[in-house]
Amino acid sequence: MKSRAAVAFEAGKPLSIVELDVAPPRKGEVLVRITHTGVCHTDAFTLSGEDPEGLFPVVLGHEGAGIVEAVGEGVTSVKPGDHVIPLYTAECGQCLFCKSGKTNLCVAVRATQGKGVMPDGTTRFSYNGQPVYHYMGCSTFSEYTVVAEVSLARINPNANPEQVCLLGCGVTTGLGAVKNTARVQEGDSVAVFGLGGIGLAVIQGAQMAKAGRIIAIDTNPAKFELAKAFGATDFVNPKEHERPIQQVIVEMTGWGVDHSFECIGNVGVMRAALECAHRGWGQSIIIGVAGAGQEISTRPFQLVTGRTWKGTAFGGVKGRSELPGMVEDAMSGKIQLAPFVTHTRPLTDINEAFDLMHEGKSIRTVVRY
Amino acid sequence: MKSRAAVAFEAGKPLSIVELDVAPPRKGEVLVRITHTGVCHTDAFTLSGEDPEGLFPVVLGHEGAGIVEAVGEGVTSVKPGDHVIPLYTAECGQCLFCKSGKTNLCVAVRATQGKGVMPDGTTRFSYNGQPVYHYMGCSTFSEYTVVAEVSLARINPNANPEQVCLLGCGVTTGLGAVKNTARVQEGDSVAVFGLGGIGLAVIQGAQMAKAGRIIAIDTNPAKFELAKAFGATDFVNPKEHERPIQQVIVEMTGWGVDHSFECIGNVGVMRAALECAHRGWGQSIIIGVAGAGQEISTRPFQLVTGRTWKGTAFGGVKGRSELPGMVEDAMSGKIQLAPFVTHTRPLTDINEAFDLMHEGKSIRTVVRY
Repeated sequence: MKSRAAVAFEAGKPLSIVELDVAPPRKGEVLVRITHTGVCHTDAFTLSGEDPEGLFPVVLGHEGAGIVEAVGEGVTSVKPGDHVIPLYTAECGQCLFCKSGKTNLCVAVRATQGKGVMPDGTTRFSYNGQPVYHYMGCSTFSEYTVVAEVSLARINPNANPEQVCLLGCGVTTGLGAVKNTARVQEGDSVAVFGLGGIGLAVIQGAQMAKAGRIIAIDTNPAKFELAKAFGATDFVNPKEHERPIQQVIVEMTGWGVDHSFECIGNVGVMRAALECAHRGWGQSIIIGVAGAGQEISTRPFQLVTGRTWKGTAFGGVKGRSELPGMVEDAMSGKIQLAPFVTHTRPLTDINEAFDLMHEGKSIRTVVRY
Repeated sequence: MKSRAAVAFEAGKPLSIVELDVAPPRKGEVLVRITHTGVCHTDAFTLSGEDPEGLFPVVLGHEGAGIVEAVGEGVTSVKPGDHVIPLYTAECGQCLFCKSGKTNLCVAVRATQGKGVMPDGTTRFSYNGQPVYHYMGCSTFSEYTVVAEVSLARINPNANPEQVCLLGCGVTTGLGAVKNTARVQEGDSVAVFGLGGIGLAVIQGAQMAKAGRIIAIDTNPAKFELAKAFGATDFVNPKEHERPIQQVIVEMTGWGVDHSFECIGNVGVMRAALECAHRGWGQSIIIGVAGAGQEISTRPFQLVTGRTWKGTAFGGVKGRSELPGMVEDAMSGKIQLAPFVTHTRPLTDINEAFDLMHEGKSIRTVVRY
C-alpha cells in the first residue's frame, strides 16, 4: 500500500514528504496507522548524521500514537481498530530481561531494531523499489508503519492522541526516571539539568513524588516559567556563574542533592550532575544520549564517598504493562501532558518542528497526519 | 609518655623505629595501647608519596587492635582495660550522615582527620619536640596512640587481636561491600578484580551471601588457591587473554555479572569492572583507592543500558554499631580471619611487611608490639 511519509534520504538534509510503499505485516507484525507523532531530539540526532548507528534512507520518528489497521500471522494481543502507542523498548515477556523483574530492556527485537529492519531482517518500507530503513522499531514519520507486536502498547481509545503520543518517549522517560530509576521519596532534593521535554517531565515526576526542593538548571532562562509551572522551586542559569555548576548546586544545598538528572546528552553536564549529588547517598541518573564516542569521567573518589551513577532508558518503564495505566493517568489529569505540546503542525510542515526545537522555541511539536 | 613507634619521616623512605612522645588524651579523646596492627596498601600508598594528602612526618597504620589505657575528659563509652578497634571511619551518631540511616560516612572528625591532627587541630605525637602527624584518625604504627572517642569500637575482650585487627580495614571493607553496598543475593554472579586482602574478603562475603558464581581475577595466579579456599568458582588471569578482560567475563557469563568489585585502585580495571556488569541491572562497586588525579571513564551508554556504578568506604559499615557483632562472628567462625594472616612480624621488622606486600607474597602481615 501507499503511505504519506517524511523520509530522511540523507544525513543533514531536511526530511522529504513522499509516498512510500508499505508492505503488509508479516508473522508477529502489525500495520499501524499513525495519527500523531512527536518530534524528539533523538530523531534530530540521527538526522544530523552524528549517530554512528544511523542508517539512510530511513523513516524516523518514535513518539507516536495510532490505530491498528491490520495484523500479521499469529498476532493475538491487538486487533484492527485498537488504539496503540508504538514502543522503541519492546516488552516480549519471555526473554531473560523481561522475566528478571529488574529491567525494561527487553531483547526480543533488539538486534534487528538496531539495524533498521524487522525481526526477519527485511524492511517493509520501500521507495521507487529501493528499501527504506525502519527506525527504533517505530518509524512514526510514516502514516502507515509496520511494527512488531511486542512493540505495541494497547491504550484507551478515548485518550487524546495529540497528547498521549508523548508517552511514547519523552514524558514517560522523565516520569519513569524519577519513579523507577531514582525512586525519589517525599522531601528529597532534586536537580534537573536541561529543561526540554524530558527535563520538564522529570520535574513533573519529582512533584508527583512530593520532592522537597526541585532545582531547574538551563542556560536558556526562557524555560524557567514552564519549569515553575511543573513544580520547580529553584532556577539556575549556569551562564550566570563563573564557578563549576556542581559547586553552585552543592553550595545551594549544603552537601548536594539527593537525586540529579542529566536530560541533555552532554558528557560534561553528566559529570556536573554526578558531582552535585549528595555525599554519602546522592545518585545521578543519565537520561540524555551523548554523541558517538564521547565518554563520561570523574574521580573515583566521588563514588567511594557514596555517590551512585546510573542511567535509564525509557524511564525503566515496561511499555505494554505500564503505558496503558499512564494513559489513564493522563486522562484523569494525574499526569499533565498538555503543557508539553507547545506547537502542532501538519505532516507537510514537519521540518518546521525540527527548526522550532533547534531554536529552543518548542518543548514538543506534535505532527498530525 | 614514651612510645615505641614506626615513623614515616619522609615519603619513599622505610619507616624508622623510634621512641615518640605521646601527649595525654584531651577532651573526647582516648589513649590506646595497640597490641597488633595490619599493614595495608593504603599505608604503602601514603608512604610512597603518591597520596596528594599525605603529610610527613607521620605515624601511619589504620588496621589495629588494642586496649584502652586512659581516657580524656567527657569520655563515657570506653574505659581503661576495654578492648577496642580504632576506626578510620568514625561514628558519632549525631551528624547528618550518621542520622540519615543511608551511609557510614560520619563527618564528626573528618576535616581534622584529613589534616593529620586531632579534632582540636593539634597532634599528640612529637619527636625531639617536633610534631608528628596522625593518620586516618588511627596511627596504629605507634604502640600508644590517641584517637577520638567516636573512632573506637569496643569489642569482646576474648577475641584474638592478631586476627580481629583485620576487621579495622580490609576484611570489613570486603565483607561490607558485598552485604551493604552491593547487597548480593543468593544465586547472584560476582566478579572480583584483585585478590589481595580486600578481594579475598569480597569472595568470602559473596560465599556467605550464597552467590552462585564467583569469578576471581588477578594477574598473579598464585593468588587463586586462597581465592578458591574462600569460595571462588572461576579463575581468570588477564595476562592469558588478548581481548579486554570485560569482554572475557561477558563471554563467560552470557551478559555479564550481577556484581563486580574493583579491589585494586586501578582506574582502567574500574572501567573493565563496570563494563563486565550485566546489561539491565549489573552493578560495579569501586573499593580500591586510585592514585592522585586519576579519573574513571566509560561511555554513558554503559549506564543507560542499565549498569550502576558505585563505590564504598569501609564497606558501608558503621564501626561502633557493627564491628562488635562482626568480632563475635569471627569468634564463632562465621567470619574466617585466619587465612588472611599469612605473616606476622615484630614491630622492629615492620618494613619487611611492606616488602612482602609489594612482592605479592603476603595477604596480610600482622605486626605485634
